[in-house]
Amino acid sequence: MTDRLHGTYVASDRIRSFIRDALEAVGIPARDAVVVADLMARADLIGSDAHGIFRLPHYVARIKAGALNLRPQIKVIRETPGTAVIDGDNALGHLVMNTAAQTALDKAAACGIAWVGAFNSNHAGAGAVYTRMALERDMVGIYGAVASGNAMAPFGGADLLLGTNPISIAIPTARGAPVVLDMATTVASNGKIKHAALRGESIPEGWVIDWQGNSITEPRRASEGFLAPAGGPKGSGLSLVLGLLAGSLNGAAMGSAVVNFNTDLHSATNTGHFICVLSLSAFGNPEELKERMSTAAEEIRSSRPLGTNGPVRVPGDESSRKLAENTSNGVFLPEELIESLNSLAVEVGLPPILSLGA
Amino acid sequence: MTDRLHGTYVASDRIRSFIRDALEAVGIPARDAVVVADLMARADLIGSDAHGIFRLPHYVARIKAGALNLRPQIKVIRETPGTAVIDGDNALGHLVMNTAAQTALDKAAACGIAWVGAFNSNHAGAGAVYTRMALERDMVGIYGAVASGNAMAPFGGADLLLGTNPISIAIPTARGAPVVLDMATTVASNGKIKHAALRGESIPEGWVIDWQGNSITEPRRASEGFLAPAGGPKGSGLSLVLGLLAGSLNGAAMGSAVVNFNTDLHSATNTGHFICVLSLSAFGNPEELKERMSTAAEEIRSSRPLGTNGPVRVPGDESSRKLAENTSNGVFLPEELIESLNSLAVEVGLPPILSLGA
Repeated sequence: MTDRLHGTYVASDRIRSFIRDALEAVGIPARDAVVVADLMARADLIGSDAHGIFRLPHYVARIKAGALNLRPQIKVIRETPGTAVIDGDNALGHLVMNTAAQTALDKAAACGIAWVGAFNSNHAGAGAVYTRMALERDMVGIYGAVASGNAMAPFGGADLLLGTNPISIAIPTARGAPVVLDMATTVASNGKIKHAALRGESIPEGWVIDWQGNSITEPRRASEGFLAPAGGPKGSGLSLVLGLLAGSLNGAAMGSAVVNFNTDLHSATNTGHFICVLSLSAFGNPEELKERMSTAAEEIRSSRPLGTNGPVRVPGDESSRKLAENTSNGVFLPEELIESLNSLAVEVGLPPILSLGA
Repeated sequence: MTDRLHGTYVASDRIRSFIRDALEAVGIPARDAVVVADLMARADLIGSDAHGIFRLPHYVARIKAGALNLRPQIKVIRETPGTAVIDGDNALGHLVMNTAAQTALDKAAACGIAWVGAFNSNHAGAGAVYTRMALERDMVGIYGAVASGNAMAPFGGADLLLGTNPISIAIPTARGAPVVLDMATTVASNGKIKHAALRGESIPEGWVIDWQGNSITEPRRASEGFLAPAGGPKGSGLSLVLGLLAGSLNGAAMGSAVVNFNTDLHSATNTGHFICVLSLSAFGNPEELKERMSTAAEEIRSSRPLGTNGPVRVPGDESSRKLAENTSNGVFLPEELIESLNSLAVEVGLPPILSLGA
């Protein structure tokens, strides 16, 4: 099926197999390639399309440039009953975070809560992919990361010392979509700005600020400024504390030590993340607790919209809707992305993800 | 010393003893009154003046109206190695949060991390007072609460189902001020709006929104609208997840069940909070880790200001500066507040906090 916006719906199985084959083609062991492909495809399924197959050409470029360790020994180097620190050994971030999340889920089952930090990691995609892992075990997932590049100046400052440092919090419900917050601490993400540039649209005031403090509204000029923090000092403060907890606490890069992985294909990034998991059973009967969460979420969904707005949404409603829709219809990939994936296929000796016009 | 802004610097010892005596005068046991007075005075010392002695007349009014339990049995009703749920038995929130924080600090020493939730509590003042307790034990403190009244509509909505639900995160450092974030999830707090009204100033666009979605800039008309979430959907989403974790998870009030303690003097509020504590020693040598935190904070403080701004600040710099200043100079209390405290003194049969013009 070809869409009027010039693109194609691709089944998630095909997205998964293409990512897996491409990663294997550049030296990632088969078992690891399957894990990473599944996690990247999950990002596409929940609509985090800036963190799915879209990232593959860039990941492959960094792998080919030798920036990552293809035979990593990801290991817990320090632990207590409720915590662990994981040395990612410069693996693909998805592998590190997958280990971190599984470690946290197991520890939380014993301790009620767990916090697992990682260093020597790399870009791991969408935080919600990891926090959502907690849901099926009736647990709450909380994720934070140091972004893979500094796109923000601290509030009131002009030096790029902070990133979009995201936070995701997933809370299970009994009915309806789970509550899943997944947000950058900047007003807008780099992905949104790139999309606007592609579409030839301008961006709103307040997204990108130049060195005099004025808004840049032409997305192609975004590199002449920096991303503004969400809520001014609040987004800036959140970005900093997330950076300290995901980065500095684990011995990962923070501040001026952060490598911009978009422009630097060769260096290890020493990326840091954390995941905190909280077991509902530590707080009561999980079914009752999920019922309470649903009640609170439903009350918001059924509340009055402001002015001419549509129905009020809860964080996660849109990603759960996308998950259902993309699982049945396939994931929409824009034509430009398919072309870039097909070029990648040629480069690594694979068949195209699909033929355009098919 | 009387200030040009019409007010007086009052020593923190006097603030503490006045609060203690007033609470005792309305039936709070001496031992509890000392604890609450100390925690309220700490809020004044760190410059959270909307959460210090300023709240005393209102607390006393609620106590006299029978809204609180003066002989509470605060107890842990459920626990795992890393978690606890505390029934506050409708005590003053400071007593409940003090117990919660001490419980969390002890559990984190054993488990690396701990999360303690509370219900049947009441307004507990400034979150930073509790997260700062972690600092002297080389721990990180994270606090969240359901605000004592719904002042915000969910993003895109028009029903008041969310509050300023604050988050505080305190991170210890080796040198300089600790990093202490303490923020409401609304653009502005009710306190800031009341201050503007007192000063006869207008408030900026975007702080308060009316039911058509337009800004209200006259602070005396703020009740004709609601507080806007910080960063639009981001502040709204954060407020919701904090409400679910501090409220619903603990069986405390959330959404339409939240009691507005400003307008309702008689009802128990069933307020919920949580505190999560993370021990640095679970992640490495605490001295080295604090050194890393200091390095990251110093890098921001010494970075270039944007445009004509002053030096770039780190969250907590201002409250630590205030703490030092107020400890030596006393806490500045505006004349109106002193008058209201002196009226309170007459009401409960105490000497005035001080004589105006003294």
